[in-house]
Amino acid sequence: MSDCLFCKIATKEIPSTMVYEDEDVYAFLDIHPVQPGHTLIVPKVHSEWLLDTDPEILKKLVVVGQRVARAVLSGLGVEGCNFTQNNGAVAGQAIPHFHFHVIPRKAGDGFKVWHGMPYGSAEEAEEVARKIRDACHSA
Amino acid sequence: MSDCLFCKIATKEIPSTMVYEDEDVYAFLDIHPVQPGHTLIVPKVHSEWLLDTDPEILKKLVVVGQRVARAVLSGLGVEGCNFTQNNGAVAGQAIPHFHFHVIPRKAGDGFKVWHGMPYGSAEEAEEVARKIRDACHSA
Repeated sequence: MSDCLFCKIATKEIPSTMVYEDEDVYAFLDIHPVQPGHTLIVPKVHSEWLLDTDPEILKKLVVVGQRVARAVLSGLGVEGCNFTQNNGAVAGQAIPHFHFHVIPRKAGDGFKVWHGMPYGSAEEAEEVARKIRDACHSA
Repeated sequence: MSDCLFCKIATKEIPSTMVYEDEDVYAFLDIHPVQPGHTLIVPKVHSEWLLDTDPEILKKLVVVGQRVARAVLSGLGVEGCNFTQNNGAVAGQAIPHFHFHVIPRKAGDGFKVWHGMPYGSAEEAEEVARKIRDACHSA
């Protein structure tokens, strides 16, 4: 898309710090990293989020994600990483062009991902699951 | 693996609230959800994390992830979701069996993903990127 920041980055119209590139995928450093080496992986063909991305492109993106995750661990000498992707402004998606994040992690870095809490009852959980399960049939 | 919680859940030895199932993939509710409908997607064949998962299984997992994400939005009527996966205890991985999280999100739910901060200089960013880029060749 002509007005999309990540389309412009993927085509080099806007400069970035490149990490990986192939025919379909471009990976570069997030300029606002949670941890140094925080890398974004984007498709060269525009899609907005997980829901509208061509499954064939999605498969390529996840395999590049695996490669970048391995490279982050071996290249930066860290012990782990978060591999994540936000869908919708409400989920923290800042740029409406599909992107996986690979975030290097090491002990004591202070980055806490989330807290959870249990369902009130098994029935409450089952009711929620049923809604998603039923929607899976047509998703 | 005989002592793996998610292997036992995937084979139904331990009960769970099922969301989706096919030959290779099982999806079920996280019992400690960040938001109601928080779903975990696991491979039936054991792997520990992103780095050691068979790429062919990884492709199946991401396509199921897309399907579950669509189902979460349409089934629960939420506006977005986080699609994420933690690698290593240091990254918040609680169970050493590969799992994608799909976390439903809506306005005002109070779940903040992360904060970032810029690199000190372009040279600092380039040096970090070079380490990952070089490691990508053998990853």
